[in-house]
Amino acid sequence: MNTTQIEALIKQMTRMEKIGQMTQITTSFFNVDGAKATGTASRMKDVEQHKWIVGSVLGKLDAKSMLRIQRDYLQHNRLGIPLLFMTDVVHGYKTIFPVPLALSCSWNPDVLRRTARVSAVEAAAAGFQVTFSPMVDLVRDPRWGRVMESFGEDRLLLGQFGAAMVEGYQTDDLQQSDTLAACVKHFAGYGAAEGGKDYNTVDLSPLSLYNDYLPPYQQALQAGARLMMAAFNTLNGVPATANTWLLQHILREQWGFDGTLISDWGAVKELIPHGVAASSADAARLSLQAGIEIEMMTTAYIEALPELCEQHPELEQKLDEAVKHILQLKQELGLFDDPYRGVSEAREQEMILHPNHRHAAREAAVQSMVLLKNQQVLPLNSTQKLALIGPYADNRHLLGPWSVDGDPQHAVTVLEGLQQQGMQVQSLSTDDSHIEEEVLHQAIELIQQSDVILLALGEREEWSGEAGSRAHIGLPHDQLKLLRIAAAAGKPIVVVLFAGRPIELEEVARYADAILLAWFPGTEGGHAVADIVTGRCNPSGRLTMSFPYHSGQIPVHYNHLNTGRPAHLLTQEKRYKTQYLDVPNEALYPFGYGLGYSEFGYGNIDAGTGELSANCPLHVSISVTNHGPYAGCETVQVYIHDRVAEIARPVRELIAYEQIQLNPGETAQVDYTISADMLGYYHTDLQYRADPGEFELIIGPDSRHGSSVTIRLLSNET
Amino acid sequence: MNTTQIEALIKQMTRMEKIGQMTQITTSFFNVDGAKATGTASRMKDVEQHKWIVGSVLGKLDAKSMLRIQRDYLQHNRLGIPLLFMTDVVHGYKTIFPVPLALSCSWNPDVLRRTARVSAVEAAAAGFQVTFSPMVDLVRDPRWGRVMESFGEDRLLLGQFGAAMVEGYQTDDLQQSDTLAACVKHFAGYGAAEGGKDYNTVDLSPLSLYNDYLPPYQQALQAGARLMMAAFNTLNGVPATANTWLLQHILREQWGFDGTLISDWGAVKELIPHGVAASSADAARLSLQAGIEIEMMTTAYIEALPELCEQHPELEQKLDEAVKHILQLKQELGLFDDPYRGVSEAREQEMILHPNHRHAAREAAVQSMVLLKNQQVLPLNSTQKLALIGPYADNRHLLGPWSVDGDPQHAVTVLEGLQQQGMQVQSLSTDDSHIEEEVLHQAIELIQQSDVILLALGEREEWSGEAGSRAHIGLPHDQLKLLRIAAAAGKPIVVVLFAGRPIELEEVARYADAILLAWFPGTEGGHAVADIVTGRCNPSGRLTMSFPYHSGQIPVHYNHLNTGRPAHLLTQEKRYKTQYLDVPNEALYPFGYGLGYSEFGYGNIDAGTGELSANCPLHVSISVTNHGPYAGCETVQVYIHDRVAEIARPVRELIAYEQIQLNPGETAQVDYTISADMLGYYHTDLQYRADPGEFELIIGPDSRHGSSVTIRLLSNET
Repeated sequence: MNTTQIEALIKQMTRMEKIGQMTQITTSFFNVDGAKATGTASRMKDVEQHKWIVGSVLGKLDAKSMLRIQRDYLQHNRLGIPLLFMTDVVHGYKTIFPVPLALSCSWNPDVLRRTARVSAVEAAAAGFQVTFSPMVDLVRDPRWGRVMESFGEDRLLLGQFGAAMVEGYQTDDLQQSDTLAACVKHFAGYGAAEGGKDYNTVDLSPLSLYNDYLPPYQQALQAGARLMMAAFNTLNGVPATANTWLLQHILREQWGFDGTLISDWGAVKELIPHGVAASSADAARLSLQAGIEIEMMTTAYIEALPELCEQHPELEQKLDEAVKHILQLKQELGLFDDPYRGVSEAREQEMILHPNHRHAAREAAVQSMVLLKNQQVLPLNSTQKLALIGPYADNRHLLGPWSVDGDPQHAVTVLEGLQQQGMQVQSLSTDDSHIEEEVLHQAIELIQQSDVILLALGEREEWSGEAGSRAHIGLPHDQLKLLRIAAAAGKPIVVVLFAGRPIELEEVARYADAILLAWFPGTEGGHAVADIVTGRCNPSGRLTMSFPYHSGQIPVHYNHLNTGRPAHLLTQEKRYKTQYLDVPNEALYPFGYGLGYSEFGYGNIDAGTGELSANCPLHVSISVTNHGPYAGCETVQVYIHDRVAEIARPVRELIAYEQIQLNPGETAQVDYTISADMLGYYHTDLQYRADPGEFELIIGPDSRHGSSVTIRLLSNET
Repeated sequence: MNTTQIEALIKQMTRMEKIGQMTQITTSFFNVDGAKATGTASRMKDVEQHKWIVGSVLGKLDAKSMLRIQRDYLQHNRLGIPLLFMTDVVHGYKTIFPVPLALSCSWNPDVLRRTARVSAVEAAAAGFQVTFSPMVDLVRDPRWGRVMESFGEDRLLLGQFGAAMVEGYQTDDLQQSDTLAACVKHFAGYGAAEGGKDYNTVDLSPLSLYNDYLPPYQQALQAGARLMMAAFNTLNGVPATANTWLLQHILREQWGFDGTLISDWGAVKELIPHGVAASSADAARLSLQAGIEIEMMTTAYIEALPELCEQHPELEQKLDEAVKHILQLKQELGLFDDPYRGVSEAREQEMILHPNHRHAAREAAVQSMVLLKNQQVLPLNSTQKLALIGPYADNRHLLGPWSVDGDPQHAVTVLEGLQQQGMQVQSLSTDDSHIEEEVLHQAIELIQQSDVILLALGEREEWSGEAGSRAHIGLPHDQLKLLRIAAAAGKPIVVVLFAGRPIELEEVARYADAILLAWFPGTEGGHAVADIVTGRCNPSGRLTMSFPYHSGQIPVHYNHLNTGRPAHLLTQEKRYKTQYLDVPNEALYPFGYGLGYSEFGYGNIDAGTGELSANCPLHVSISVTNHGPYAGCETVQVYIHDRVAEIARPVRELIAYEQIQLNPGETAQVDYTISADMLGYYHTDLQYRADPGEFELIIGPDSRHGSSVTIRLLSNET
């Protein structure tokens, strides 16, 4: 079906049929097994009568249900327009990968691409065609539970990893039945929620939006994402769902997005509590005018648009535009050719939890974990007797938030992982919040019989994720008590930390000899932990979000501004600086940081003349040597600082990175091409360009260390 | 000297003389006793040669020095232009009043006006003519130490109290020798420093600036303030000192300010570390272009402007404009008629710490204190034996930050205050951070002999104030330990709290039967505490800044937005709300809150028809009755919520308040006139107007309680 045919089809549609296409309800309306009507759905009973014109559904599904629903639907739908099936495949469908924040710590777009590919294969086999992923909201506040779904605090990584996931879901041919269309979210600024409370107010200057928050969305769209989701939050007073500046001016006019724009769950009617709409009709009008094309899980469009379009016939054009995008999407996905998209129960059974998928999940988990501390404890060897203690010692709840279709029963626990690799391990499971005295005594006994203590600590899954905001981001008191008691034994302590956000670790770091950040590692979590602690794999993850000392230090991000009185500036006055009296300025563990079992040495930066221009990029190289006893992967990071700019620029900003694999004793030269474009930023006129002049270029292993050279942009004119 | 004469004088000035007028150095350059050359001054030795053309000085002074300096200066200054003397009189000169945040808790502009008047009388007698006060930076982050210098989180109070202080300093005749010209600061947004770290980055949307942050500056200027100070921070990337949008477009063009614009201390050269200037010359050029007329304590203007003006003769006009404002200020202050402004040592001696001033300080301190909790403990009576324990039991360091000329030796301690009022009190002083075991034992002994325990706890003065940022805003561990030990005695505990910021008080509230927030109460602090705890005065202070439960809950402010998923909205889903999992959304003690020794009952709101229009305001009234046994003052607060607006509006916003004095059993009717203007806000077009429609109007004792009616704005057209 080509554009002309789509337009002809739209001409045949009644107004109500168009509005139906613009409405999304859950699969529970079609009696899918296990798809419960949630509170929201149960309040939408009136939509039942319209379900055969509704354009798309989201929620639980399997191949059998999909085939049944689509068949029934096509029998009822007057024009035979197939139903579109969407879902939240965020980090895996049944084979669950580490949470996105963890995946981002691989600093490897291939990892993101591969996990998205596997997710698409499984979810498409179950009948889905669209996923609400990737999320590329820039995050600086670990109190916000949804940081687990982001790729962290750097706009470059967010954009690249978002683009990689889009490529993985969609491939370059959406007609293939094992693909999903990607929906980039949440447009825009959702990650800057005030106080880290979910759905909360966002207030950002235009320059902050242009330079930090908006580029990742744009980059993910440029990778071809076919949908965009508007955010829940207000942006500078106006809810994103009704924000014409954002959804029209930026998204359509400036960026030329030609895909489908969908609301978040219930967000259209939420314009009423936001205080910008008096009624459903108001909410429908504002959303339609702003450009929301699919209303997810409220029915303001169905209730109000028929009459509104009657009164304002010019709105009909808005409907046609929206429906055109929606039908084009169905066309791109091949639904007009095969509304079942080759779904079969046999294919589903073959694909779900395919051994290759589990293998990919294990690899991704290994690459996501970050070794934060290691005082010559790790890796362990099989002669050591291990005492494995804590809430995550033998716990399958490793999938993490937003793994709605994953089943913890398929997950591998830490104990199982260690046992499979032949480690001598005895374990004791504890509660995560209330560890009884008796259990502490058992722990002490176990420790007495062991050589090394492995404490598997962390947050419960539901403490992060959507609406999982916490004011205190430390571990529960009883877990810290367990740690202190273990420390009293004087034996080496390894803490394996499960979490969906940066955690306060100052006290943990005081007692633990090694800290392995496992995040929520997914289905193969236990194997991956074992791979690392046994030395089978050399950890290579690097943080993509700073770990603060304390909640009171938030926000801590590597790319802050210098201020007029930076704390590092040596003057006679100690006090009058940008600093706290009681806590350092820096993160406990900074962006880009992570250890491995080898040591990498950096040579001097070779930047040649140090000069570049718009027409002539600069080639920069550095040699890196593996001085350690293990083959390993190093992520060589390149930052710049624009010394004098029209606006104050970050003390450091990531512009490039390379991962290299080096055997023990091996040296490699890492090359980068620095273009003028990489030095640019949006100026006060909101135009992007680089300023001629000096830049500090820093190459190093993380955002705190490295050596620097001065480079000079001679001209920004091509 | 009239405008024509000033212009004639400018014509006679050399370029260097003009630049001199635009430079401010410390009095240390003129060898004032006690005025030490600080680090900054010692780096400015080159300015020595220019000191007879410098236009103004700041810092230590006394009448004798002023007379000498001015005499010497006029002998050297070619054109006989008198020197201008400025200072930081923030909450008193020698008679120190409570810190401004405390003063604002009086909710009484008269208190602010009176304290400013006394400050002016004293400082003018010592030879000063300008004070860098009031500060009207809106604050929401108690980690920032400088909240003590603000009037809190509400734009209406900030504007009104700022205006009141301007009136107090300046009166309506600046020629009078007992006045000071006021300098409003810090323009703009300084209170929104990221993470509450001083001087840090500020990022605010234009609407947030227009609706919340800018109005207080404008209102203080409208009261006649003759100077404005630019802030240290970047505002949306551009340091305020170089921010043409702010200093030209807003301040001069939109607001029509015709006074003098001064930089903050060293801020011109700080454009270099900010990263927007490459050199002093660059910094001078950017500041001059933005409109900085006096460079405080760096010498970029002197170093660079002569050559810069040579190269760019059009800049000469900028110099003339600046010098015109500076000379006009000197003229307005009467300096051309009497460069000594009637200063004499005799007048100084008479005025400094005049008994009337101390009386005013005591009254202001009483009105500033806030009773946060009282479980039938206060007031005390003279038959009770009191154990007064803690770092502030007998401590004169009650003046608080920014009381540079105050002398703690003149301060009255809590012990002295209680003894003077005939209370039976035994005291034990402790350290604020490290309370030895032996001292704790002494405390227990003292408690055993007493009927009531008074714990005088709090922050050390230098933990707040400029550059006094803290990530943890609780009391030191040892003070909490003292509290717990005291609580074990089972006797009534009164905590008197000394602080420069909102403090975490959840644990204090658990153990204390009464909490009196004394802030830093100034010279008469001990008397004021005694006045309240003995019942001689009935406390009436109300918070102007929310007290969070925990640092991790910041920011907490009463006038937040509702969001699309407010926590109070009852639905079947408990989780998916704007909230933390572990801490309430609300403040522990909210804005507007404070207890007294009486109970006030509120009748129903009488809002008549409930309708108003631009031409016809609405009269609203409520009756309030004193049900308690003491005469007392109640602050009856009026809030609105705009139910449907173009942008999401605060859940509550203060639009009016009245203070009433009621005897026991007395009832009064409180009347308000609600105009359309009071319901307005800046829209996305940055125009101020009120939207016709429904508003919730709430009248009550604080921002959390009260009864409400619906009112309706019929039309916003006059």
